[in-house]
This record gives sequence, structure tokens and C-alpha cells, in this order.
Amino acid sequence: MRMSKIESLPNSQLEPKINFKPPSGFDIEFLPAEKRLEQHLLDIMRRVFEQYGFTPIETPAVERLEVLQAKGNQGDNIIYSINPIVNEEDEPKDGQDSDRRGLKFDQTVPLAAYIARHLNDLSFPFARYQMDMVFRGERAKKGRYRQFRQCDIDVVGRGKLSLLYDAQIPAIIAQIFDAIFSNISDDFGAAKYLIRINNRKVLTGFFKAIAIAPDRIRTCIKVVDMLDKIGEAKVKLELQKHGISEVQSQEIISFTKITGSTEAVLAQLTQKSLELSDPSEFITGITELKEVIAGVIALGVSEDKFCIDLAIARGLEYYTGTVYETTLIGYESLGSICSGGRYEELVGIFVGEKMPGVGISIGLTRLLRQLMDAKILKPLSPSPAQVMVLNLQSELIDIYLQVSQTLRQAGINVLTGFESRPIAKQFQQADRLGIPLCVIIGEAELKSKTCNLKNLQTGTQTAIALDDLVAEISLAIKNL
Amino acid sequence: MRMSKIESLPNSQLEPKINFKPPSGFDIEFLPAEKRLEQHLLDIMRRVFEQYGFTPIETPAVERLEVLQAKGNQGDNIIYSINPIVNEEDEPKDGQDSDRRGLKFDQTVPLAAYIARHLNDLSFPFARYQMDMVFRGERAKKGRYRQFRQCDIDVVGRGKLSLLYDAQIPAIIAQIFDAIFSNISDDFGAAKYLIRINNRKVLTGFFKAIAIAPDRIRTCIKVVDMLDKIGEAKVKLELQKHGISEVQSQEIISFTKITGSTEAVLAQLTQKSLELSDPSEFITGITELKEVIAGVIALGVSEDKFCIDLAIARGLEYYTGTVYETTLIGYESLGSICSGGRYEELVGIFVGEKMPGVGISIGLTRLLRQLMDAKILKPLSPSPAQVMVLNLQSELIDIYLQVSQTLRQAGINVLTGFESRPIAKQFQQADRLGIPLCVIIGEAELKSKTCNLKNLQTGTQTAIALDDLVAEISLAIKNL
Repeated sequence: MRMSKIESLPNSQLEPKINFKPPSGFDIEFLPAEKRLEQHLLDIMRRVFEQYGFTPIETPAVERLEVLQAKGNQGDNIIYSINPIVNEEDEPKDGQDSDRRGLKFDQTVPLAAYIARHLNDLSFPFARYQMDMVFRGERAKKGRYRQFRQCDIDVVGRGKLSLLYDAQIPAIIAQIFDAIFSNISDDFGAAKYLIRINNRKVLTGFFKAIAIAPDRIRTCIKVVDMLDKIGEAKVKLELQKHGISEVQSQEIISFTKITGSTEAVLAQLTQKSLELSDPSEFITGITELKEVIAGVIALGVSEDKFCIDLAIARGLEYYTGTVYETTLIGYESLGSICSGGRYEELVGIFVGEKMPGVGISIGLTRLLRQLMDAKILKPLSPSPAQVMVLNLQSELIDIYLQVSQTLRQAGINVLTGFESRPIAKQFQQADRLGIPLCVIIGEAELKSKTCNLKNLQTGTQTAIALDDLVAEISLAIKNL
Repeated sequence: MRMSKIESLPNSQLEPKINFKPPSGFDIEFLPAEKRLEQHLLDIMRRVFEQYGFTPIETPAVERLEVLQAKGNQGDNIIYSINPIVNEEDEPKDGQDSDRRGLKFDQTVPLAAYIARHLNDLSFPFARYQMDMVFRGERAKKGRYRQFRQCDIDVVGRGKLSLLYDAQIPAIIAQIFDAIFSNISDDFGAAKYLIRINNRKVLTGFFKAIAIAPDRIRTCIKVVDMLDKIGEAKVKLELQKHGISEVQSQEIISFTKITGSTEAVLAQLTQKSLELSDPSEFITGITELKEVIAGVIALGVSEDKFCIDLAIARGLEYYTGTVYETTLIGYESLGSICSGGRYEELVGIFVGEKMPGVGISIGLTRLLRQLMDAKILKPLSPSPAQVMVLNLQSELIDIYLQVSQTLRQAGINVLTGFESRPIAKQFQQADRLGIPLCVIIGEAELKSKTCNLKNLQTGTQTAIALDDLVAEISLAIKNL
């Protein structure tokens, strides 16, 4: 019901003076139907994470700057600091560096801080999931947000951590994406995604074995990581720009192109190790990769869902072993939709202990927007209600309230019509909200102790006894 | 496994140089077992909200300052602004006021902005729930956090909104707290909470009718709101300090003390209206209150769970009709655990339309900490895993992985033991994590195609056929 008085004002007077748009880069909010889809994805992830024994944690959005910067200066140009806009005297005034605060830009440093804060209350290996918002003051551009939900799992050990945790990760990724894509029509293809696995030591060991200088190894990793984006020719050029010889860069390119079944790739790697002069780190990498792949297979992940991809390097410096990327087949331009790896020196920083870990991350806000834009996933209905109890006569409102409560007690989501509007308008409301079933009770129905159940999806309307209401509606919901 | 090398360092060298504690007021993070309890409460709220047709939304943590300040300057001394710590040139440089940003301090202004941003995509009345983090730069003290989760529902209409939405709110509150407290032993009492309902127009109408000057009405509301905290005598004094006469303040105190069944209170109010000279607003308030109470009763909320409490005023200026508070019986010092009310001029501010609404809010972070501190609720187990598959012999790892996957496919949460540790250590791990069941498979069991299922709660161990594993464990979980 609009106010006709306001409606009739000239437009210029209606114009709101306040710019109520979200700030640049913070245009992340979803419509109800989209938010319900996000919630559905969060539910899937949570269910799978918990099936593997991961426990939820949540860390504050705000940490001390020195904590956020503990991993080196990598976050410096993306960290937002927070300050009260007035009344600064209400805040601790000592102005010590220790009291400067910023918004977290990832979940890894906060995990390290969480472990340090609760070291004696946690059980190790510590397997946690975390699906909080993170904040990055990056240049805003389409598809890059300054706030987004990042869904992470990590297992962290004290001193050492079995490689089987690395093997578990692809099983978790597969289970999540199988569940997310399970409703998609078959023409999308059976294997919709591909988990690409590699091991940093395989790469660095190979680089060392072909006599790449130790101080160039990191650069090589970073350049190889760009293969997907810039292609073979440019990678070769880039390598040579960094002092890698023509022969070496050709060897690197050829190496990343070794493909085939995991068995075949592992066999070729072993063969290659025999040809190299100092393959010790390379062999360590192969051994690790073999153990991880064996575990993935033992966990029942079918071979069309994962592969060894020697071109997977991951740009981040801290990975030391297994690395993962996940590509959506046919939508490779989206980039990796789930990535991660094994690290050694990341989460023990505050404790002062060696705490190796392995984990993955899904940038959910961006991924969900991409999947909806590409029509791979479509929003749910705007309302969670499964039934709308229509309001035919205001005098019967107590009946409508009681019927609604009876249905709710059976676990059914019910919207009760409180506005006395024409029935057509009420159907329209149910339809707009995506509510599939309407319960219609007027004087006549009440006298005969029945009601009419209208299915808006099929258009059918059936009379049912009020006593059978819960059973009939439960059945109708099942058959939707 | 600690690194003995680091362990043996003198303590001074181990001492982490970085202060990894959360900043003051941001010490909000829960241990895994506590976080799982929070998740349990969030699940309950979500289920109830959705049963009443509320749809989830989430707005960004960051809004333009002019949006956050649109409701007047009430937020000014609690708003945090955000700014990049370096590279400010990466941010929009125009420096216009419109680009200044802050963290949201409640969910109401963001709801108003959300509605304005998506007006044509929403269906009205718009019923939404929102359980996001909010940020308040208040003086930090025990139990007051600078970041906390606020769980809100609101229904917003265009132009008008049925009072039945007000009636639905106590039903929702009751259903939530019934579910939250359902596991508590009976000695806590049957009615564990009390929803106290009032109507602002009953108060303001009464104040007007006893000739309190219009410019004092707001003050009277604020002072009456302090009754619970400072008591009758001080309220009287405070009223008189604001120019309310001795007689008037006595009348106000007496008025707030009208108690009894809802029927009795409504009868007394009607009687009182007959005695007053200009009771028009008072009568409007009584009529609204009557309709709301009738709805609450029709919705099946039993009378031991709610009452009319004429001392409930709510401090916030924007309430115009129904107001609610909820008290935990025996723990009144916790204050109201769920409050809200009806407002007229709150969420239409950006749209420039009249958009009446009614809603409630639960400050979950604080409430949960209080309920745990008071031992009213206790944390869940630290791990969501229901079963741990022990690692007796590393060579059998493929079996352990397969058994784990079989159980997961049946929807069971499983932790697989990856570390080869003595079995006692593994039981200890399961126990620390609160995992009730352990599956034990060694060479002998494997040969006889059986396994041992140990129930850590009862200490019993039973041999079961591997083929019956899923059925037996599902049964054991059911009987926990």
C-alpha cells in the first residue's frame, strides 16, 4: 500500500538526498532468492566439512595490525584500519602500535592467532572450517569485491602432519561440488569439474635438477602459475626475461605438459628422475604425490574428477608440498574455484612452533555470483515458505492462525495471509514469493471441516479434510 | 609432536614478540565446542524464522557514513570508519562525503538501505531475518563487545502493516526459547522465560491523559524504561527532576504496577480509560494491545510464557506501538534477552515512503556468553565427528579410508585416525574431541570380516560384522 500523498509529489521532491548505494566494492548483497542459494551452498559445505570431522570456528573481523602483518608485508596494501569517527577518547588512547587495528584480509593469519590464543584448549591435529567475511582494500573492479565470504578448511599438526590429510582434501572438494551440481541437467556433463593436483617439491625439485639457480626457483613457480592465464609462449618469454635459458625454459614447458592418467604421469615422473643428476628433492616430491594420489583413490574419488597437473604451481609463497586447483569444465575462464595446498611455516608463527598444515579455500561470494551469471546455478525461491494460508475472511483469522501453527508443528514453513486482499492478489503474492501451495478456507469449507489446497505449480485444486491437513500437505510437498 | 629443538630453547627466545590477543572488545571468539553451540542456536533461530516465512538477507559490513548516520546522530559515537592503511591512491580519491565509509552498528539502517536498493525486486510485506556481525566503538567493558552477532527479524509493509504481525512475534520468541532450553533439566522450571508485552501508545496516551506536557513524554518513556535497573524510588525522583509533579509521578508508578492475567490487565486499562478526560491515544493503544494479545493467544502461546507489562517502555525513540522484552526467569539480572517493537518512520527513510514495521533483535554473542557463564547452556562436543575410525596398522589405511567413506555416505560424521599412535592415545584423542564411538579394525578383525565398536560413553565394546557396520553404527548413534 503506497501512500498516495507521497506518490503524487513531484519527482524532484521524492529524490532521496542520501546516496544509499553500497560503497564501491561492497556491492555484495544478494536478493532473498540468491541469499537462500548461498545458504544452501553453505549448508552443503558445512555438512561435508563436518562429515570429515572439521569443527567450526569464527574469529573476529578485527585483529591487531601487527597480527595481520605478521606474515610479512603481503597484506599491507589491502588492509583496512578501523577508527572511531568521533569520541576517540572512548577508545584506548595509549596509541601504542599494539592497539592499532585492521580488518582481516584472509582466514590464515586469524587461524594462526586463534591457535596461539587457545593452544591448550585445542586438540591436534586441529581440523577446522571457517566461512567468515574477509576484507581487502583492493582496486574495485567487476567481480572483485572488497568484502567477501571465504570458506576455508585447514588441518594443522604440531611438528608433523600425515600426508593422508592432503589425500582427504580432493575427496572433500569432490563431495562438495557433486552436491552443489547434483541438480543440474545432464547435458552439463558427468564430470563437471576437475581437481588438479601437483606437488611444489616436484616442481622445485625439477627446477633444481635442471640447474636453475636457487634464487630463481620462486620466480619460476610464479611464472609457471601464469600458464593458464597467459599461455605457453608468454611464459617462456617471461622465464627468459628472468634469466632462465632457452633450453631450460623449453624443458620447463615440456615438463608441465606431461599428461595422462595419474598412473601414467607418476611413471613418467619416476622415469624422469632416473635421467636427472641431482633429483633428491624431485624424488621426495614424487613420493609425496604418489602417497597423496593413492589416498585419493582409496577414498573412492573417481579418476574423471581429478588429475595430476604439473602446471599447477599456486602463486602464494608459503606452499611447500601438495597444491590443488579446481576447474569447472567448459568454464575454465572462471579460474580456479577451489584452491589450496600444504604449508609448513604459516600457522605456527605466533606459537613459535613448527605447525604444518594443509587446506583449501573457496571464495564463495565471487564464485556464487559467477555461477549465477553463467546460469550454472539458479536462485531458489525468494521465500522459504512452502505453504501460504490465505486470508479469505478476516473473521476467520483465528482459524488461519491455528491451521498455520498446526502445519508449523509438523515442520512445515508457513506464511499466513494477514492482509484482507482479493484472493487473486494473494495467489499473486504466493507466486511472487515462490510459495508452491495455498490453503484456502472460507465459511463453506469450515462448515464441512475441509479446506482447498491449491498447487500453484500444477494449477490443480483439491478439497481435503481439515483432519488430514498435515498428512496431505506433507505429501504434496514431497511430490513438488 | 612438538619440535624438541624449539622446546629446548630458553623461554625468552621462544616468547612471541607479537601481541596476538584480540583487540580490546573484540575478544568474541568461541572455542570449537562453544562455536558449535552457537551454530546450534543459529540453526534453531533460522528454522523458526523460516517456519514463519521470513527470508534470509545479509548486508555488507560496510556502508556509506551518510547511510549509517541517516537516522540522526545516534550512531555517531559508536561508528568505526574504515581506511586503507597504505596505498590510499588505490581507493577512490574524490574525497566526497559520499565515499566515506563505516562499519554497520545495527541491522536496522542496513535494512532500510537494502529495501531502498532492491525496492522493485522485493515483495511486501517484506519479512526478513538477518544474523550478521555488527560493530560498535563503545567503551569496552566486561560483557560489552565491539563486534557481535545480532539476530534480527522484521516485517516491513508499504503504507500499512497488520497488527497480526505484532502478534506473531511472541509466538516466534516462544518457539525459539522453547527449542533452545528444551534440553535443560526440569528443575530449571517449566516456564523458563517471560515475554513482556506493552504498547507505547498505552504509555504515551496515559501520560497525555494525566496532563504531562508533550515535550516531556519522551523523557517519561526513557525514565520508565529504567524501572528494572534503578527501581521505583529513583524513577520517581528522576521523573520529578524532569518537572513531573509528585502526583503525576505517583500516578505513573502506580500505572506501571497494574498486573494480572492479560484479560485482567486489559479490563483495568479499559476501566482507567473511562476515568480519564482525554483518553483518545490511550484507547488506541488499548485497542492495539487487545488485538495483539488476542492473536498471541490464537497462535497457541500459553499464558505462562507472556504477559502485559506496563513498565516495558524500551528506550529507543523510534518505537510507536507494540514493544517487547523477554526475561529469563531467575536470571533477571541478564536484562532482556530478546527485545523489539513496532515502528513507523524507520525503514522508509531512503525510499521516502511510509513503511511501518515490527521486529525483534537478539544480541547472540553476548547472550550466549551469559548463558554459558550462568551454566544455563553448556557447549557441545568440540568435534562434530560421531565416529572415529582408529589407525591400528598403517598397512590397513586403505581399509580405514574405505570404512570411513562408507559411513560418510550414510550421513555419519567420521574422523579417520591418520597418525599411527598407541591405541590408548587414539581413545584419548576421541575422548578429548567428544567423539562417542570408535571403530577398531586390526588384522584379526579383517580376517573375520568384523570390527570392534567401542562406545566411549558406556565403555562397552562389541564385535560387529563389517557388512552391518552402517546399520549398527546408525543404531548406536541413535541410542547415544
